[in-house]
Amino acid sequence: MANPSLLSLSVCLLILFHGCLASRQQGQQQNECQIDQLDALEPDNRVEYEAGMVETWDPNHEQFRCAGVAVARHTIQPNGLRLPEYSNAPTLMYIVEGEGMTGTLIPGCPETYQAPQQGQQHGQSSRFQDKHQKIQRFRKGDIIALPAGVANWCYNEGNSPVVTVTLLDVSNSQNQLDMYPRKFNLAGNPEDEFQQQQQQQSRGRRQSQQKSCNNIFCGFDTKILAEVFQVEQSLVKQLQNEKDNRGAIVKVKGDLQVIRPPRRQSERGFESEEESEYERGRRGRDNGLEETICTMKLKENIHDPSRSDIYTPEVGRITSLNSLNLPILKWLQLSAERGVLQNNALMVPHWNFNAHSIVYGCKGNAQVQVVDNFGNTVFDGEVSEGQIFVVPQNFAVVKRARGQRFEWISFKTNDRAMISPLAGSTSVLRAMPEEVLANAFQISREDARKIKFNNEQPTLSSGQSSQQMRDDA
Amino acid sequence: MANPSLLSLSVCLLILFHGCLASRQQGQQQNECQIDQLDALEPDNRVEYEAGMVETWDPNHEQFRCAGVAVARHTIQPNGLRLPEYSNAPTLMYIVEGEGMTGTLIPGCPETYQAPQQGQQHGQSSRFQDKHQKIQRFRKGDIIALPAGVANWCYNEGNSPVVTVTLLDVSNSQNQLDMYPRKFNLAGNPEDEFQQQQQQQSRGRRQSQQKSCNNIFCGFDTKILAEVFQVEQSLVKQLQNEKDNRGAIVKVKGDLQVIRPPRRQSERGFESEEESEYERGRRGRDNGLEETICTMKLKENIHDPSRSDIYTPEVGRITSLNSLNLPILKWLQLSAERGVLQNNALMVPHWNFNAHSIVYGCKGNAQVQVVDNFGNTVFDGEVSEGQIFVVPQNFAVVKRARGQRFEWISFKTNDRAMISPLAGSTSVLRAMPEEVLANAFQISREDARKIKFNNEQPTLSSGQSSQQMRDDA
Amino acid sequence: MANPSLLSLSVCLLILFHGCLASRQQGQQQNECQIDQLDALEPDNRVEYEAGMVETWDPNHEQFRCAGVAVARHTIQPNGLRLPEYSNAPTLMYIVEGEGMTGTLIPGCPETYQAPQQGQQHGQSSRFQDKHQKIQRFRKGDIIALPAGVANWCYNEGNSPVVTVTLLDVSNSQNQLDMYPRKFNLAGNPEDEFQQQQQQQSRGRRQSQQKSCNNIFCGFDTKILAEVFQVEQSLVKQLQNEKDNRGAIVKVKGDLQVIRPPRRQSERGFESEEESEYERGRRGRDNGLEETICTMKLKENIHDPSRSDIYTPEVGRITSLNSLNLPILKWLQLSAERGVLQNNALMVPHWNFNAHSIVYGCKGNAQVQVVDNFGNTVFDGEVSEGQIFVVPQNFAVVKRARGQRFEWISFKTNDRAMISPLAGSTSVLRAMPEEVLANAFQISREDARKIKFNNEQPTLSSGQSSQQMRDDA
Repeated sequence: MANPSLLSLSVCLLILFHGCLASRQQGQQQNECQIDQLDALEPDNRVEYEAGMVETWDPNHEQFRCAGVAVARHTIQPNGLRLPEYSNAPTLMYIVEGEGMTGTLIPGCPETYQAPQQGQQHGQSSRFQDKHQKIQRFRKGDIIALPAGVANWCYNEGNSPVVTVTLLDVSNSQNQLDMYPRKFNLAGNPEDEFQQQQQQQSRGRRQSQQKSCNNIFCGFDTKILAEVFQVEQSLVKQLQNEKDNRGAIVKVKGDLQVIRPPRRQSERGFESEEESEYERGRRGRDNGLEETICTMKLKENIHDPSRSDIYTPEVGRITSLNSLNLPILKWLQLSAERGVLQNNALMVPHWNFNAHSIVYGCKGNAQVQVVDNFGNTVFDGEVSEGQIFVVPQNFAVVKRARGQRFEWISFKTNDRAMISPLAGSTSVLRAMPEEVLANAFQISREDARKIKFNNEQPTLSSGQSSQQMRDDA
Repeated sequence: MANPSLLSLSVCLLILFHGCLASRQQGQQQNECQIDQLDALEPDNRVEYEAGMVETWDPNHEQFRCAGVAVARHTIQPNGLRLPEYSNAPTLMYIVEGEGMTGTLIPGCPETYQAPQQGQQHGQSSRFQDKHQKIQRFRKGDIIALPAGVANWCYNEGNSPVVTVTLLDVSNSQNQLDMYPRKFNLAGNPEDEFQQQQQQQSRGRRQSQQKSCNNIFCGFDTKILAEVFQVEQSLVKQLQNEKDNRGAIVKVKGDLQVIRPPRRQSERGFESEEESEYERGRRGRDNGLEETICTMKLKENIHDPSRSDIYTPEVGRITSLNSLNLPILKWLQLSAERGVLQNNALMVPHWNFNAHSIVYGCKGNAQVQVVDNFGNTVFDGEVSEGQIFVVPQNFAVVKRARGQRFEWISFKTNDRAMISPLAGSTSVLRAMPEEVLANAFQISREDARKIKFNNEQPTLSSGQSSQQMRDDA
Repeated sequence: MANPSLLSLSVCLLILFHGCLASRQQGQQQNECQIDQLDALEPDNRVEYEAGMVETWDPNHEQFRCAGVAVARHTIQPNGLRLPEYSNAPTLMYIVEGEGMTGTLIPGCPETYQAPQQGQQHGQSSRFQDKHQKIQRFRKGDIIALPAGVANWCYNEGNSPVVTVTLLDVSNSQNQLDMYPRKFNLAGNPEDEFQQQQQQQSRGRRQSQQKSCNNIFCGFDTKILAEVFQVEQSLVKQLQNEKDNRGAIVKVKGDLQVIRPPRRQSERGFESEEESEYERGRRGRDNGLEETICTMKLKENIHDPSRSDIYTPEVGRITSLNSLNLPILKWLQLSAERGVLQNNALMVPHWNFNAHSIVYGCKGNAQVQVVDNFGNTVFDGEVSEGQIFVVPQNFAVVKRARGQRFEWISFKTNDRAMISPLAGSTSVLRAMPEEVLANAFQISREDARKIKFNNEQPTLSSGQSSQQMRDDA
């Protein structure tokens, strides 16, 4: 049963959150994007924990500084729990592999998942029935969006590792601190996974590595915490547990028991997950909380082929997630694109005209070329599974599958990132009069027509063209 | 009587001002917020004027650079007039003590306070009847909001000094200049109150201290000013008055005579001020200017106990001022919080998840602890009346009254700043399932329940808890 | 005939573009605006091309760094075509002289200008009929607004040179790259017109001057381009034409033939252009594309006297273009002001309270004074045709025509830039009570009245005032 005072609080929260809306990328340094050469990068730092590991890419690398982002990859073993934490940067998390559940802790929202109040029926005390905020299932292909400062935990409830790639948009206006990615831990004694890279730049600051207690409770006086929690100091010391060396990802003893709605009886696997979520949505409606931040959708699947925005059989597909299909992205000023290329197919050369694109290879290999404003090739190489490269705003890029299949996820630093293709049915050249093309390139009008109209496909292009074959021969 | 052309101008102004809406904090430097230690700071510069003084905190201090703000404290003696000036930064002014009147000069708004036009009735010339823009009374506990570039003057009409604390949000998007707080004087020859601190950093620029004339008219040619004002050059020289060494706060001879509505007959003191303002609001409606920037509310009281948002008798109260209860704050992207703690009570540990918090001690003393992302205590000390400390975004803070009473005002760098408590009925721990807590902290489910549910109070916590007492014993 | 799928695409585009709306100026450096002295500047770099030239002002000059902008002047000879290009910065282009046509290439918008499909009627192939996106005529006094990343070409179809002045707002939030103005060329091998100035600062990066191919196709593999365009590699090599040394502005052989609506039969010259455009607008309505970005107005004339916002015969006139009369400016966060002063008239001293102002002299000479926050005259000199000066936000400025006529165009870094005059009927002094003026300046109430009410004109002031004349005598 929804507490009416909490209800009005959460309606109020909706309005408050809308205030965060005017967010944006901020103050790049003077020459942050003078990039001569891009690279396909592997993570360069790894921290092992009890039930998983965190790998990070050096946020001081030229590419990431230009884009104003940091990236991490988490691997959570079965039964592993990533402890609750929050960050100074809004975050997009992509589930590369696995399935599990996650809780996003929004201050002031009511605890809407409650155990049945049997106690009252039987005249017993109902004091020890748990209640907590909404919990969400996640699975391969989900994007989970987290505003800056909002805490979150993750649990692997499957039989195989959960692998996630996380983008932290440190140059987002939601982050009023500096450009360093920061993790504030609510439990455990995790390392600062980005720290090693930051050491060089930090101005001789005392390192926290010597410290045995790293979570946010460690810095407070035990007596004060005992007072505010109204518990014994010995229990508070457990919150500040210095002896805990399990790190940020810990092993849960047995299964993690939480209160949550069952999957539907008829449900087989995750394909019908969305329907069950819709049902939950309707239940939410019943308790009057709809349209508040507390019930806002923070997750969407971008992997299902049926959601493709651009699709050519045997060639590939592209799915976009932006603030139109996941409204929270409007606050985060971020979006994402999931692509699949088959059989040596190409995504035509294009530029992102209002965003940087941070591309992570999910499967297979690709040949990629990136071109800057001087017409220089700043990247020409192969990108493999698990590598990242950055395509700065306005730079042009072409991707081509090497062999059977290349799959990728792109994070984009605009909630409505758009591309401008150089070829195909939506290309910039097609938009120009023939005569402009003819004069610009010193070609005949007939050749201009070929350039404009030969390729009628939008964005994707199969690897074999009769024209090109002939030409090669 | 409202001039119809001016009326339409001000309607237009409303729309124009709305354009300023997309404002925000801007480009912090790379490592501006690598803070090892915070301090409770006293002002470190003082300038004495004829009828008052201005004290400033060094804006280059690490804390203020991280928050991107500057702070000043003004003391205006009875009958003192702070000369009209404007700033490159949007400003929040809190009235710590005293009462007076203020005029905010919005270009293009009509002069709606007019002397009665007796001249016309009696056939005399009405040329010398004064008219000017709206004037507002202020009193202890008022917040006055000023957009960047809008000029303002203040007059102390009480019997005791007016003391104000002013936040200049130099990193706000409304400020397109650099991060230095700048004051543009429309009269007098005041010193640059922030200048001394800036000298070190300014790149050998010529100092203005040698100059005898500092206001904005000084830089213009006397003949040009005579032309545009259509007055004698001798009068213009009075605007550029080099000999004026009274500074920024001057003594008014006799009372300051202005046109303004009377307080209500029945009015006793300021407590019923709001009603009289409401009445004025209705009068405004009659001349058709409602809903324009010209009649927009720039002031709200945050001190009256009856306005408290959170209140526990004997423990304390907290009042928030944000863009929902003072809409101009949406343009300024700022908000404020006024708090009172009694009898050793605590405001529970919490983090600001979308704002920095700049805290000024108004009364009494407090014990304060601030914790960073490494779990380090970056501040653990006493804060007294008249001191300022900064709580950077996402850092956690706890405040506890030392003795009978601690009162503070917090300025926050977001128009809808929100906090996330670590304890109490709206805490982040309560939002998690018991089992997550139990596994995170390696505690029993029973202990997890205590952590979640023992403290049922929101945000404030009395200083004495039976649990804690027992524990101490 | 509009392709329905393209139609829905462009409706979608409208919504996508609205997402770009939260744009803004970004992170100036710490002391970017510590300006001791401003200058009226001539361009300091010139690049000659086949059919025109590009002159640029050094974007590293203190003035331009403070304002966060770069400026270029293009001269296009008759029959000259400025090749298609796009920039990392949103752009305002003012047509100083001449007339021509321009195409703005918006990705995803349909090709709505089509040759009649005679082929189908006569059973022939219609494959070789051209179609392309909308083309716009421009003439002297037009402002053309271009979002960042959107490509554009220009053609001089008149008998005299086209001269344009272009503002690139590199510190705009639409630019997520660094502060350098960048040009991405879709054809030809133009030089980087801003490059010479940037050399000093660029960290030893390889220069592109040695390169013979500078457009965006040059960086891609010929085979890949042949595939995506489905043309022969020899034709692709023509896109990457290394031998093309005509530069960014090329001579068109014969007239440039494009598809576009005729001017009206009755039309004489350009004065009735707007009506014909209105008609085109209605035709646009018929194909259902109205209210999309694809038909959004990107151009407005600011030169026609009939559009003046402030007008005093024999004295002068001022016309403003902001997001209220050209909505695209809301996305660009820019506006413009066109002014004419006659017979030694003055624009009264004023400050821009929410924008920098970048002023280009279009005709004649003016005496200009600019005053900073210390009351220092940072500029006191003559500005001639073809020179630029910057008035930083909040700095006060006065302009006076030297002789018969001074004309200027100001670009402003806010889509609703506002000024606050120091004199005249809308002045800040007039908004204050007489007694405040009297006490502030130590003058009598009678003198305060003169200051407030003697000049009843808004913003403009004739050069001869009886008062001043008397005084001079």
